[in-house]
Amino acid sequence: MRIYFTFDPRPDLKEPLVKQFPHVEFIFHARLDEEELEKADVLVTYGEDLNDSRIEIAKNLKWIFVASAGIEKMPAKAIAERNILVSNVRGIHKTPMAESILAHILSLKRALPFIYENKRNKVWDKKAQLSELNGSTALIIGPGAIGSEIGRLLQAFEVYTIGCNRSGEDAPFMNETYRIDELESQLPKAHIVISMLPSTPETKHLIKLDHFKLMRDDAIFMNFGRGNVVKTDVLIQALEQKLIFHAVLDVFEEEPLPLSSKLWEIDNVTISPHFSSHSSRYVERSLEIFKPSLEKWLNGETDVENKMNILRGY
Amino acid sequence: MRIYFTFDPRPDLKEPLVKQFPHVEFIFHARLDEEELEKADVLVTYGEDLNDSRIEIAKNLKWIFVASAGIEKMPAKAIAERNILVSNVRGIHKTPMAESILAHILSLKRALPFIYENKRNKVWDKKAQLSELNGSTALIIGPGAIGSEIGRLLQAFEVYTIGCNRSGEDAPFMNETYRIDELESQLPKAHIVISMLPSTPETKHLIKLDHFKLMRDDAIFMNFGRGNVVKTDVLIQALEQKLIFHAVLDVFEEEPLPLSSKLWEIDNVTISPHFSSHSSRYVERSLEIFKPSLEKWLNGETDVENKMNILRGY
Repeated sequence: MRIYFTFDPRPDLKEPLVKQFPHVEFIFHARLDEEELEKADVLVTYGEDLNDSRIEIAKNLKWIFVASAGIEKMPAKAIAERNILVSNVRGIHKTPMAESILAHILSLKRALPFIYENKRNKVWDKKAQLSELNGSTALIIGPGAIGSEIGRLLQAFEVYTIGCNRSGEDAPFMNETYRIDELESQLPKAHIVISMLPSTPETKHLIKLDHFKLMRDDAIFMNFGRGNVVKTDVLIQALEQKLIFHAVLDVFEEEPLPLSSKLWEIDNVTISPHFSSHSSRYVERSLEIFKPSLEKWLNGETDVENKMNILRGY
Repeated sequence: MRIYFTFDPRPDLKEPLVKQFPHVEFIFHARLDEEELEKADVLVTYGEDLNDSRIEIAKNLKWIFVASAGIEKMPAKAIAERNILVSNVRGIHKTPMAESILAHILSLKRALPFIYENKRNKVWDKKAQLSELNGSTALIIGPGAIGSEIGRLLQAFEVYTIGCNRSGEDAPFMNETYRIDELESQLPKAHIVISMLPSTPETKHLIKLDHFKLMRDDAIFMNFGRGNVVKTDVLIQALEQKLIFHAVLDVFEEEPLPLSSKLWEIDNVTISPHFSSHSSRYVERSLEIFKPSLEKWLNGETDVENKMNILRGY
């Protein structure tokens, strides 16, 4: 039984794993080596190092554990044809992403950019407008696992949370939930508008300039879902016309955001380089999901956590 | 009945107050005018515009409502001799201060200073160490009303909270509470150490270099209580020797922090100009406390909210 990791966890995470499964042969490489792949029964990967020919090489492979939420870059058809089990670490982004969202909102409310700038310039200045998150209303477009975690934290700050999803059915930690086609009626209420929408044909360019016109002029707009939900030009117009107070963007139509983009020049925008899911605890959490799954799998069970339908994509 | 405000609330806050009490004559000035003071039955003040002779001038004065938590600058003896009722807005700082504390912690954990700097330099760079607040341990020295509110919010982020107070008796939203003389044993456990201590003879220079030596080297130290709890030189040594990861300071031994202070030069410190209690909702909240108190007082009752013993100081 050979388990091949195509990334190399820290010793303090690797050693307990090896100890817990003494009859398993673990191989840890910082990148994929095809000779090792050929012998592997189980592959643990970030999911970006596979293609059709490598699936063919991996003739013993029975299970791919993807230490990532996305599987867009995996050769789905080849994996499905071989009937290889695939599971992932769905939900692992929930905590770091919700913390990043809260960090950005609180930073703007409590004037942290002003504090940091004055520190750099050695200026003692109390003349900032400090406001509060408490008592605000937040609209979360796409309240899935991450959006609900954001809702949970916002409610601790006594924020009123409104969700917007396809069905309009109640979502956890949302005070109210509406259908996406009711979005327009909810936008004027929100001090904070957060898009957590995935990239699908229906969500492409879903948020238009008219939506920004409906938002409060003191609103914070945040996109932490996928970049193509709003056209970059629309964002630039909304910010230049000061239709809203500030935008915080973790995702962009084009990534990395080109140096030529006007967004870099605009003051009332925060540019986060699509890393709000990153966390020093990422591998630790992945292994917390992997270990019980491996126990099961060694017992001949295949109903491991976060088992995926690779063709359906989730 | 004349009520004299020595500050001038926004129209949207002033008008409902005037309407609610049609039989009261309200006077609003942006600063104290002694001729008006002479005629006032009630004074609403931030508490920094009084002295012995003005109390003498205010011959009709029966109640001072202080729209501030501190009353250090008030002529306590003169007020007590005249038996003037004093009440304040204790607790009003709780929400904005707790939000500032959370903002600073989350900002450091989620690399916001790095994000802001890269935006300024138009750099797309994912190579930051993003960590999490989740699962940390926080030590709150002086968990009063504000410290408990911080504890409540930290617990929403699944932080383990340890309080340290004089008695060691349980404080709200603390998982454990210890006595101040047990501080040393608790310091090594904490990822975040927050001082909310007031300025008293016992707290002066209470935190010494040895305390910083006991802290984790990845600890964040925050002082949002009073500046003289730590000597500035001790802070500078702790930061220069990297005994801790970062300090966030809202209070200082000398305020404003002198331009000559070495603290301005040090990277791993955030300098907040003693304004973390500021909030655009401050006057609104003060009036929310004032209005029911005025109702009572007009009915001849004197047990208004936050009634103070001016000689005792709280």
